[in-house]
Amino acid sequence: MSPAPVRVGVVGAGWWATSHHLPALAGHPGARLTGVVDRDPDRAAEAAAAFGTTSYPDLAVLLADVDAVVVATPHDTHHSVVMACLARGLHVLVEKPLALSFADAAAMARAADDAGVHLVVGYTHQFEDVAAFVRDAVRHRIGPLLQVTVEYSSRAARLYSGGTYGAEHGGGQARTQLTHALGMLCWVTGEEITTVAAFTEGHGHGVDVDDAAILRLSGGATATACSSGRTPDGVPVRQHIRYLGADGAIDHDLFRGEAVLFRADGTRVAREHSQHEPPYRAGEPARRFVDLIAGQGENPAPPGPAVAAVAAVEAILESARRGAYVRPSQMRCDHTR
Amino acid sequence: MSPAPVRVGVVGAGWWATSHHLPALAGHPGARLTGVVDRDPDRAAEAAAAFGTTSYPDLAVLLADVDAVVVATPHDTHHSVVMACLARGLHVLVEKPLALSFADAAAMARAADDAGVHLVVGYTHQFEDVAAFVRDAVRHRIGPLLQVTVEYSSRAARLYSGGTYGAEHGGGQARTQLTHALGMLCWVTGEEITTVAAFTEGHGHGVDVDDAAILRLSGGATATACSSGRTPDGVPVRQHIRYLGADGAIDHDLFRGEAVLFRADGTRVAREHSQHEPPYRAGEPARRFVDLIAGQGENPAPPGPAVAAVAAVEAILESARRGAYVRPSQMRCDHTR
Amino acid sequence: MSPAPVRVGVVGAGWWATSHHLPALAGHPGARLTGVVDRDPDRAAEAAAAFGTTSYPDLAVLLADVDAVVVATPHDTHHSVVMACLARGLHVLVEKPLALSFADAAAMARAADDAGVHLVVGYTHQFEDVAAFVRDAVRHRIGPLLQVTVEYSSRAARLYSGGTYGAEHGGGQARTQLTHALGMLCWVTGEEITTVAAFTEGHGHGVDVDDAAILRLSGGATATACSSGRTPDGVPVRQHIRYLGADGAIDHDLFRGEAVLFRADGTRVAREHSQHEPPYRAGEPARRFVDLIAGQGENPAPPGPAVAAVAAVEAILESARRGAYVRPSQMRCDHTR
Amino acid sequence: MSPAPVRVGVVGAGWWATSHHLPALAGHPGARLTGVVDRDPDRAAEAAAAFGTTSYPDLAVLLADVDAVVVATPHDTHHSVVMACLARGLHVLVEKPLALSFADAAAMARAADDAGVHLVVGYTHQFEDVAAFVRDAVRHRIGPLLQVTVEYSSRAARLYSGGTYGAEHGGGQARTQLTHALGMLCWVTGEEITTVAAFTEGHGHGVDVDDAAILRLSGGATATACSSGRTPDGVPVRQHIRYLGADGAIDHDLFRGEAVLFRADGTRVAREHSQHEPPYRAGEPARRFVDLIAGQGENPAPPGPAVAAVAAVEAILESARRGAYVRPSQMRCDHTR
Repeated sequence: MSPAPVRVGVVGAGWWATSHHLPALAGHPGARLTGVVDRDPDRAAEAAAAFGTTSYPDLAVLLADVDAVVVATPHDTHHSVVMACLARGLHVLVEKPLALSFADAAAMARAADDAGVHLVVGYTHQFEDVAAFVRDAVRHRIGPLLQVTVEYSSRAARLYSGGTYGAEHGGGQARTQLTHALGMLCWVTGEEITTVAAFTEGHGHGVDVDDAAILRLSGGATATACSSGRTPDGVPVRQHIRYLGADGAIDHDLFRGEAVLFRADGTRVAREHSQHEPPYRAGEPARRFVDLIAGQGENPAPPGPAVAAVAAVEAILESARRGAYVRPSQMRCDHTR
Repeated sequence: MSPAPVRVGVVGAGWWATSHHLPALAGHPGARLTGVVDRDPDRAAEAAAAFGTTSYPDLAVLLADVDAVVVATPHDTHHSVVMACLARGLHVLVEKPLALSFADAAAMARAADDAGVHLVVGYTHQFEDVAAFVRDAVRHRIGPLLQVTVEYSSRAARLYSGGTYGAEHGGGQARTQLTHALGMLCWVTGEEITTVAAFTEGHGHGVDVDDAAILRLSGGATATACSSGRTPDGVPVRQHIRYLGADGAIDHDLFRGEAVLFRADGTRVAREHSQHEPPYRAGEPARRFVDLIAGQGENPAPPGPAVAAVAAVEAILESARRGAYVRPSQMRCDHTR
Repeated sequence: MSPAPVRVGVVGAGWWATSHHLPALAGHPGARLTGVVDRDPDRAAEAAAAFGTTSYPDLAVLLADVDAVVVATPHDTHHSVVMACLARGLHVLVEKPLALSFADAAAMARAADDAGVHLVVGYTHQFEDVAAFVRDAVRHRIGPLLQVTVEYSSRAARLYSGGTYGAEHGGGQARTQLTHALGMLCWVTGEEITTVAAFTEGHGHGVDVDDAAILRLSGGATATACSSGRTPDGVPVRQHIRYLGADGAIDHDLFRGEAVLFRADGTRVAREHSQHEPPYRAGEPARRFVDLIAGQGENPAPPGPAVAAVAAVEAILESARRGAYVRPSQMRCDHTR
Repeated sequence: MSPAPVRVGVVGAGWWATSHHLPALAGHPGARLTGVVDRDPDRAAEAAAAFGTTSYPDLAVLLADVDAVVVATPHDTHHSVVMACLARGLHVLVEKPLALSFADAAAMARAADDAGVHLVVGYTHQFEDVAAFVRDAVRHRIGPLLQVTVEYSSRAARLYSGGTYGAEHGGGQARTQLTHALGMLCWVTGEEITTVAAFTEGHGHGVDVDDAAILRLSGGATATACSSGRTPDGVPVRQHIRYLGADGAIDHDLFRGEAVLFRADGTRVAREHSQHEPPYRAGEPARRFVDLIAGQGENPAPPGPAVAAVAAVEAILESARRGAYVRPSQMRCDHTR
């Protein structure tokens, strides 16, 4: 007898949910798409109709009907929505960033741990095979980590003038974009960021649009992180992390979903992108979230590194504001499931 | 009637001088290689014999016989040797870094200006055609500069355990290696660095081996600079500067001597390396120095940006030591010839 | 009132159909997946169950119920199946190669033309935006075409020992693999191949596994085509066409779905792959086939170039067998819809 | 006591000799540049003055005064000049191609063998370290060779309208340019070409400007060779050989002087270009020729593969003319020193 499908609700019916999470859930044989809720009831109704599910008027009502929730709401609402889900013992997949502050993020991680449920963060890149290759190589094949170079340029600045990604909802380049790379860095290394110093530049958007930061990792390595949301059309973005170790190095091209391991003996190992998958598989988190609840696989995007990334972003923004070195907050690791 | 050859003396007969400057001068029809001096008389004699010139026992005596001097001595001696040359009204080509401190470097720039002589700094990359392409593009073709990403990894750490590049002579990654990229950055942009914050890591060598810094440029752009001297054998080094502007971007690969301009209209312009020249033409500074004195061309490596690079390195090292943001010293630009 | 959905039948329920065509049709709102037929009734039944459609015992019965047919059967059956479909006035999407012989392929093209229906060939690469960019550039932006370099290596040799891609069903590297590149070449240039000479090597498989050919195009350009099915695991395949013109050149990387136009003025235009699509979108032909029947868009893979590719492959195999130059057959172009 | 310098004469004082061979010989401590001869006495006198040597009025007189000769005359004179040198027992470095016909080339190889002297062919690429890496890898690390893809595009067509590289002196793309790649192919594999078929296109120059050929190697591998002399300015040339073996592959970029070995286990070994050498070191053949005579090293460009390359070019041109497969002539290998 096949197991009962996982009953999943979706909170937030914006373009990301309708483009990626809802189709992925609708197409997953192990999931039943129970319903969708949005603060805009018309938008919820439209999404429900498109994906053959029910539009719920109220979050609490939806939560009563499901086993698991996908949260794709503005950044500043993640904490309250996710805490409501966890309070009911529901599994949660929440978009990145986990939260705007370390305090909120850590509370979410602890609540998930206490509830004994899965909390998965929507860091899509971590669901790629190449990410596991990079993680293994950084931990086991390049010797002690010496230095990391992070670049994450994008064209997101156009989103920051207001609305979901504007200042009022916790937008900006660090929280929206650089978080991808910092989340990957913390997940790959298993380390946290102990000190940062940063410059940011907002170009009048009310949020950071360009970020330049130095980071000290808990294992001692130094790092730089450079990120701009103003890459002009026509100029390729660069979303890349280089890990330099005492016995080798890894180049991880997040944008292309590819990596190369360089070993001290002069040999290299490349992971190239498949012809049959998009480099960025935005439906994968929802699919794997359902599988995880069904007992298959491990959590590719657990809360621990996501909390560390939130702490790093918080420290970067504070450092830039104050013109001083800042030590990100750290949580006890045994609380991160 | 052809002009009298420029009489050139060489101070320092180490491997760099004997590998590059002395052969270049010996082979230049417009130069007369008058003599060589070194604190080790045997080494001076050997070099003099190899290149058909005279070994001088004493710097002052050599200076009396020449029009121009190439200084290739340890970093910590640049200031005193160059000041002695300038005091006699001699033209000077001095290896990078110009000096260990801003105060020394600025004094040298001013002294050259006052003496009305050429002071050329041995930033070999600035003598490449591709550098002029990058400079023109950054200033005129990519719009306002937003962000710069500097990477300069090398294998120089093995030199830092003592001797010429050890702590006692002002060695270390920032002064020896990162200076290449910072000199290029200041020369290309025509800007100075107004604030820095940095981490350095010495791994017990007594000097910095890994550097991670953020920089604010005088025009407002943010930058990161990442540099390690511990790139393992078998791992390719990366010596690269990316300039991101509002209307385009440039990737400058210093190691390969190549660049690509990306324009907002989607077109690109590449400068690829010639088959007939080495990417790093270490004899070029001495050759062009002689030409410059003979009235040909402009100074491809003038003291202004070199002073700014010294100031930036000084600030990086101080920032890392103190764990605080530091504002590099700045000289009045009208003093830099 | 929205138009009635296109009733589509699928002939052949092998892995390609079940992996790509059937999911694409099942997910297309404008298509009704009427049924599937296969010479193996169990396989047909299984596929029908998986995609919520009907398994037909007999091709003729299925054809009576549909408007359009997707043919994904072994190469040697394309001609008879497609002719049966066209005889009933049905639109057809057939896998590449269109047929094993020029005579068969030309007959199919003429029959489609006479029936006034769409005949689409499953050259997936032609459905990519980058292909249209390459076609436009080759025809309008690089001047008269001088020379073309085709490489198409793969790992398909393991399929040739028997079964669908073995000698008995018209397998081999030229018909199975090189056809991708030759189809693209004919479609991009709008030209045919007027003369070929070739070597093939079968390594005992009974079909060609390695092909090396020279081609003369109808416009006068010379070309080489190199293709091996024995690329070892661990070695990246290369699937690439370079078009050299008098005023520019194009590099088309079929495997990555990318292209670069090099212009004589030194500027370049690159088409890079999107993060959100797989480089090889194998479901696209079926989707676009349905759209085409519904009146949307043009046929991205019309029979004319596909017939020319079949003729070229036929000539390559004959040339290699005879050790002589061979002129491929050519059909009157006005018969190719 | 150091050995007496090798007395070297140079035949031909055109731009190649004055740019590369004469400076290399003048700067080699083990060589004495005895004299230069040219059919244009003024040009010989000018070159002699520039390099501090003697202009000889007559070839025979020069040959009487030397141990070794560098021959840099038009292609069609190589045979007679070199045979005159060998008849006097002199060592010879001759520019590529060795000769215009197999008969001439084979006679030269046999004469050198009979005289017991060194005959070195000016295939500059074979003097690079990367070439030895490629040769070793092709012979020992990629398993049985399956297929080779040769591309050699350049901008040489402008030379073919007359003069040294025009039809009257044996110019054209195959003899002047493609010979570089064919010489490398024969040298790397140690094989000969057993059958060819080709197209050439002269665009009215009276010589071949574009070549497209298939080659069968003596070991059984198939190959294509594509070469055009009409690469527009602004379009990068591609000078590249890919060797595909049963257990790996090599990409050899002749233009950049780089190579990558791909192994079936997924690892790679790259040979990247040094910063301190030009990719094309045109002075190296003359320097190494002198060293070879002095007993140092082996002949990096022996006559055997050069004869095979001449035979292949001859067959390519004949095949294109006749529209038929042609078997290149082959010499007994034991005659090639």
